[in-house]
Formats: sequence, structure tokens, C-alpha cells
Amino acid sequence: MAKQLPRQIDGLKQKILFVGTLVEEAIAKAISALNNRDRNLANLVIEEDAEIDRMEVEVEEECLKVLALYQPVAADLRFVVAVLKINNDLERMGDLAKNIAKRVVFLADCELYDLPVDYRPMAARAKSMVKDSLDALVNSDTALAQKVRESDDDVNAQRRLIEERIEKQIAKDPVQTEGLLRLSSVARHLERIGDLATNIAEDVIYMVDGEIVRHHHVE
Amino acid sequence: MAKQLPRQIDGLKQKILFVGTLVEEAIAKAISALNNRDRNLANLVIEEDAEIDRMEVEVEEECLKVLALYQPVAADLRFVVAVLKINNDLERMGDLAKNIAKRVVFLADCELYDLPVDYRPMAARAKSMVKDSLDALVNSDTALAQKVRESDDDVNAQRRLIEERIEKQIAKDPVQTEGLLRLSSVARHLERIGDLATNIAEDVIYMVDGEIVRHHHVE
Repeated sequence: MAKQLPRQIDGLKQKILFVGTLVEEAIAKAISALNNRDRNLANLVIEEDAEIDRMEVEVEEECLKVLALYQPVAADLRFVVAVLKINNDLERMGDLAKNIAKRVVFLADCELYDLPVDYRPMAARAKSMVKDSLDALVNSDTALAQKVRESDDDVNAQRRLIEERIEKQIAKDPVQTEGLLRLSSVARHLERIGDLATNIAEDVIYMVDGEIVRHHHVE
Repeated sequence: MAKQLPRQIDGLKQKILFVGTLVEEAIAKAISALNNRDRNLANLVIEEDAEIDRMEVEVEEECLKVLALYQPVAADLRFVVAVLKINNDLERMGDLAKNIAKRVVFLADCELYDLPVDYRPMAARAKSMVKDSLDALVNSDTALAQKVRESDDDVNAQRRLIEERIEKQIAKDPVQTEGLLRLSSVARHLERIGDLATNIAEDVIYMVDGEIVRHHHVE
């Protein structure tokens, strides 16, 4: 039975990477839908979130099975516990991408013909944080995890810039307040995706080094 | 060693309840600081979040220890895994209470002399969801967990009402846009606390019944 554990761990790695890919695609599609006022693509993102939810359940069941049947210890145990937590974070990212898509459906009916902000750079950064955090997990790569932590400040700064621009626009054009606030919420959703990727990176560092970094700010 | 497992499980219950109490207090203090423009109380909430962070680390270490040394199975395993996830959610609630407190510090300098909304009912509801979700956990009480899930819609509806009121106020008084938006973010933070309590309730139902409810909407 002990011999089968590495195979189980490898299976978990493949599955969690697959969920990560689904999440990255959902973010990319949601932002593309926003830029192109593409209501159909937004609806697709909303529908496809069910697959991320289904995978979350499957990964959790798999983790419980590995814990119960193989009783891993040391590094293997920490890996399984990390996957349990990261799985949760990925499902929440999927929800955030779905929330962005819902905003797109709303905005498609709004009078804002020109978006006063470009979300693509912020979305690209958030998406690469998701990818890097999972690569860091499967390769136990703490340097890459550290890079993810450092990116979080950029994403937060981008969110603040976008919010400031939108606040100015509201003060100039208060009739558009509702649409502009919905647009501004996209920045917060992307920021939270970045925060969740940072959580994953911190779980990876803990898994590898046993060092709890999550409550220490990046220098 | 097997005899010691119930004692370890009981220790985990006490600890997670204690973290829950810290979180409830942080929410109550943050909202009281908001209502009374009490900058000192807000700063206290910000400081005291460090204790919640410290407890998160302690609970996680304890869970890993129980998994490695006692290799629980069946109901005990599911309880430990539930605590691991719930512990994470509580830490995030602490961060949200801290975020509310940071808004209070900002708003204390703003010109909004009369708050256009009363956050107390929404905060009371969110706080009782936190308490009920943890009582449901330690007593394996799925009926109470179900009640928490049902409360989530109320909290979301309260958030929407508050946002609408604030949007109207912005359209009337665009000079106050920045302060009003900061005030509006308090509603989102409370809503997310409610969401996290709902996650906990769903983890409890899964722990007890083995039924995954989190992706089924409440009837």
C-alpha cells in the first residue's frame, strides 16, 4: 500500500493543476467578454463554473481517501493538507470569475459605451499569479511562490488606480453611478483572485519550509 | 494512543470555538467604532487581529499533529479536515473585520456627519451566523447549519439595500463620492463574513451527512 502513495500524490497534483487551468481560462474569458461586451461569452463563463465546482468536490474526496487509506506523514501529509486548502481557494476564484461575468451581462445593457479603464493588464497579472502559484505547488518551488507574493502588491496598486479613475468619472458623470460602480467591482474581484493566489503561494512555502509566512508582510 | 484521540478532538473544538469568539468580538467592535466614529476602538480591532492570526497558525499545527500522530479515520478524520478549512475561513473573517476598522479610521476624517445607513442590523446578523456555524460544528448540528445557510440570503439582501441607498446618495451628492464608496465597502465586508459563515455551515453538513451541499442553492 505504501508503494501506491506516490502514485496517489501524483494523481492529486494532476487534478489540482487541471482545476487551476479551468480557473485561468475562466478569468481570461470573463475579461475578454468585458472588453468586447460579449454577453454570450459571459454566459459561457457562468455555465462553466459548474465544472470547477464539480472538480472541487472530486479533489476533496480524493484527499480524504488518501488520508484515510494511506495515512501519509511528514511531507506527504503536508502536501495533502495544502491541496485541501488550495482546492478551496481555486473554487472561490472560479466564483469570482463568474461574478465578473455577471457584471458583464449587466454592463452589456448599460450606457457606458467607452470603458474608462482597461482591465487587461490587471487580469493578465492575476491570471499569471494563479498559474505560478500552482506551478510552485507541484514543483515545491518556494522561489516562484515568493514571486507570487511579491506580485500581490502590484495587483493591489492596479486596483487602487482603477478605483480612483472610476471615482473621478462618477464625480463628473453621476448619472452613470450604478454602471460605473458595477465596473469598479471587477477590480475588486481581480484583486481577490490575486489575494487567493497569494494564499496558495504561502501554503506552498509552509509546505516546503514549514515556515508560516502568511502573516508577515513582504519586504 | 487511540484513547487519546477523543481528548485531542475535544481540544481542537475548544480552540476553534475560541477563535470564533475572537472573530465575533472583532466584528462587534468594528461596527461599534463605525457608529461612534471611534478611531481608538477601530485601531484596537486592527491590533487585535494579530491574535486571530496567531491562533490560526496554532490550530493548523494542532490539526497536522493530530493527523500525523493519531491517524484518525471516518468521522474523526472528517472533523479534523473540517477544522482545517474552517480555521482558514475564520482568519479571513478577522481580516474583514480589520478592513472594516480601517474604513472607520478613514471615515473619521470624512465630512459625512450623518451616516446615511445603519449597519447594526446587518452586522448583528453576520455575527450570529458566525456563532451559529461554530455551534453547529462542535455539536454536529445540521439543522443549525441549515439555518445559517438560509440566513445568507437575508445578509445579501441587506447588502443590496445599503448599496442602493448609498448609490442614490452619491448621485445626489457627488462631492462625497469617495467617503460614500468607503462606507459602502463595509456592506461588502459584512456580506463576505456571511458567505464565509455559510461555507462553514456547508462544511459541517458535509462532515455530518457526507452530503456536499455547497453547490446547491438553498430552496
